[in-house]
Amino acid sequence: MSVHLAKGMRDILPVELRKRRSIVERIQRVFEQFGFEPLQTPAVERIETLMGKYGDEGNKLIFRILARGKAGEQGKADSALRYDLTVPLARVMAMNPQLPLPFKRYQIQPVWRADRPQRGRFREFYQCDVDVVGTTNALAEAECVAIVHHALVELGFSSFRIRLNDRRILRQMVSAIGALDREVDLLVAIDKLDKIGESGVRENLLGQGFTAEQVDRLFVMLNTGEIPDIAPELANLEAIQEMAQAMGVHPDRVAIDYTLARGLDYYTGPVFETILTDDNIGSVSGGGRYDGLIGMFGKQQVPAVGVSLGLERLITIMEERNMLQDTSGQADVFVTVFDDAHQVHSLQIAQALRNEGFRTLVSMKGGKLGKQFKKAHNAGVRWVIVCGPDDLENGTVQVKDLQSGTQESIPRNQLVVGLQS
Amino acid sequence: MSVHLAKGMRDILPVELRKRRSIVERIQRVFEQFGFEPLQTPAVERIETLMGKYGDEGNKLIFRILARGKAGEQGKADSALRYDLTVPLARVMAMNPQLPLPFKRYQIQPVWRADRPQRGRFREFYQCDVDVVGTTNALAEAECVAIVHHALVELGFSSFRIRLNDRRILRQMVSAIGALDREVDLLVAIDKLDKIGESGVRENLLGQGFTAEQVDRLFVMLNTGEIPDIAPELANLEAIQEMAQAMGVHPDRVAIDYTLARGLDYYTGPVFETILTDDNIGSVSGGGRYDGLIGMFGKQQVPAVGVSLGLERLITIMEERNMLQDTSGQADVFVTVFDDAHQVHSLQIAQALRNEGFRTLVSMKGGKLGKQFKKAHNAGVRWVIVCGPDDLENGTVQVKDLQSGTQESIPRNQLVVGLQS
Repeated sequence: MSVHLAKGMRDILPVELRKRRSIVERIQRVFEQFGFEPLQTPAVERIETLMGKYGDEGNKLIFRILARGKAGEQGKADSALRYDLTVPLARVMAMNPQLPLPFKRYQIQPVWRADRPQRGRFREFYQCDVDVVGTTNALAEAECVAIVHHALVELGFSSFRIRLNDRRILRQMVSAIGALDREVDLLVAIDKLDKIGESGVRENLLGQGFTAEQVDRLFVMLNTGEIPDIAPELANLEAIQEMAQAMGVHPDRVAIDYTLARGLDYYTGPVFETILTDDNIGSVSGGGRYDGLIGMFGKQQVPAVGVSLGLERLITIMEERNMLQDTSGQADVFVTVFDDAHQVHSLQIAQALRNEGFRTLVSMKGGKLGKQFKKAHNAGVRWVIVCGPDDLENGTVQVKDLQSGTQESIPRNQLVVGLQS
Repeated sequence: MSVHLAKGMRDILPVELRKRRSIVERIQRVFEQFGFEPLQTPAVERIETLMGKYGDEGNKLIFRILARGKAGEQGKADSALRYDLTVPLARVMAMNPQLPLPFKRYQIQPVWRADRPQRGRFREFYQCDVDVVGTTNALAEAECVAIVHHALVELGFSSFRIRLNDRRILRQMVSAIGALDREVDLLVAIDKLDKIGESGVRENLLGQGFTAEQVDRLFVMLNTGEIPDIAPELANLEAIQEMAQAMGVHPDRVAIDYTLARGLDYYTGPVFETILTDDNIGSVSGGGRYDGLIGMFGKQQVPAVGVSLGLERLITIMEERNMLQDTSGQADVFVTVFDDAHQVHSLQIAQALRNEGFRTLVSMKGGKLGKQFKKAHNAGVRWVIVCGPDDLENGTVQVKDLQSGTQESIPRNQLVVGLQS
């Protein structure tokens, strides 16, 4: 019998999982401070719900699930694995008109994409989204910006920049060079400025048949910011910045950037993206306003804006920079078992500690205390308890503090208080 | 565009999700008190890993996933969705020989089964397992029993019984009536005693061709407990009970019960199951020792024992009995916006509160305070803050306590302290 993971999948073992949880808890706390509520959607969606929402490339990466009742392995797929958290949210909103608006939800769940597996990239990974549904008020955008800012600070980052733009501003540029029919090509090209620079993008656009005049005009606008008829959108972006600052966002960490395009089709207004200014890993967060998506599911248009934190990328960076410690370990206390006859006392001592909140291991084997101490050390506990025949007679326990190296005899009925102090 | 969930799937909306989380957190705390460590395995496993582990019925219920790169909806499945948490654990153990034994892990993740959906039963549901891998010491069983006991008490249950038996004791009965070749049929029949009573099981067995003599002899053993050659297994069960009691398990809540069979094939020693004595919903927890399963994946046999809490069933009961409250609500504080010109002050006030840990909403619309109070009420907050032109001049804020109905004016710089007290 072979023993393998499915392709692109991974297990998350305890040490790593405790680190991940500490990150997720800190992010979640920020989400909740802003009054966002948790939502969970199922891993499995109808195929029709997902198809056509992520572009041609996306469609190909959706994992399809066979309909029930097919005994063999061949068959027809009628459902698929969640590909992101935004489309399921749109479905939820369309199906639950009773939800009071604005609906502020966060969602931290895995998604699945049949990408070609690469080092550090998996086919199952967590997304971490907040969205505000049901308002066009720019405070919603500002909260997204503030949440990203505070979550990153909470995780220990200080060198980052949240870039802001508006799809309608990009559109004005596209329109100014008379290329509205090729908007997507232009956005995709502009989106590469980070990676291939101005000359690279110029070459790319010329190669796609844009005229030199069009390309020149585009870069004048990008470089000077002199774009026709963008006053309302610009004022809106400035308002978002001001509101974000009132919510504690550092002014140096937010900037309007007309070159920011964002890949996804469905954005209709402001878009944002966050880069670490001391790392070239790419964006660690992205989002924007999408006032058209929910209307694809329901009878009416419902405005929405949201942002996603790149959890997996943040974990990678934090791991590289040694920003993650497994501080809690497996347990706090390890209670040794002197021998089988004394096991019951060890169990009672352990339970008294557990009742006071100490995470407590009891040795699965009696005797050979040296071996038991080694187990205790490997488990990362701070205290090891020994209760032998003499202790039993004297009503004491021996407590070794692995942190300080000290050992002392404590009356058994004062053990809990002793460890708490 | 139609808008539906996939068959048998469900969304978990905020109020319900907060309730579920409070349950899971309490259970998790008990797991961690016993030094169990968290593990996550991927939703997707290789088909070979899952097939043949759950019996014929189980095989049919496994959701199969199409291999990548099939553009159409037809194709061949090469992976499948996790069906339980035990088989993935066995795979993890076989793949990770570096893990120190005994390995004590808990795992709380969804599993998927293509069951025919019924009221209250879904195709995606959470399992909640603890297992001890790598020891034959009966303390592992005792910890499983103690964990189930303490978790149920922690959730507010008091009327329950943990039933204990041993597969080898059942086997002795089967052997005593000369039916070792029909062990599975007998276990399945005995397992129905709860539901159809002695006469029902007798009829069932006679109908299957067992002789009246065999059936009589079986029931003499079940009813008197006089079963040949079970002294070691019985002593072991009694030791488990004693150890569990030393860890705080109430003696009336654990009982040896020779009629307990448990469905799964892979158990090899002690088995346990928990029923609520004041409810006929069936078992809310089950488990046992399975010393052969991990060896199916790895090169060597590794003993293991584990128990699963029936999270979904417990939630159903707790919901029915009104044992679940959404005590935390969406937020603690709602900060109104007097008008657009005063928004920045509201944002600053809100952020000061968030920084102190208050979950704080700011109105997405200025003006019409009555409407804003209604929103605040619906959000379940305790405090509503108003900061109007007069307040701005006087350096105050108005705080309405929705719990007590009182309203008072507080100096703005003392707001946080005021709410904390």
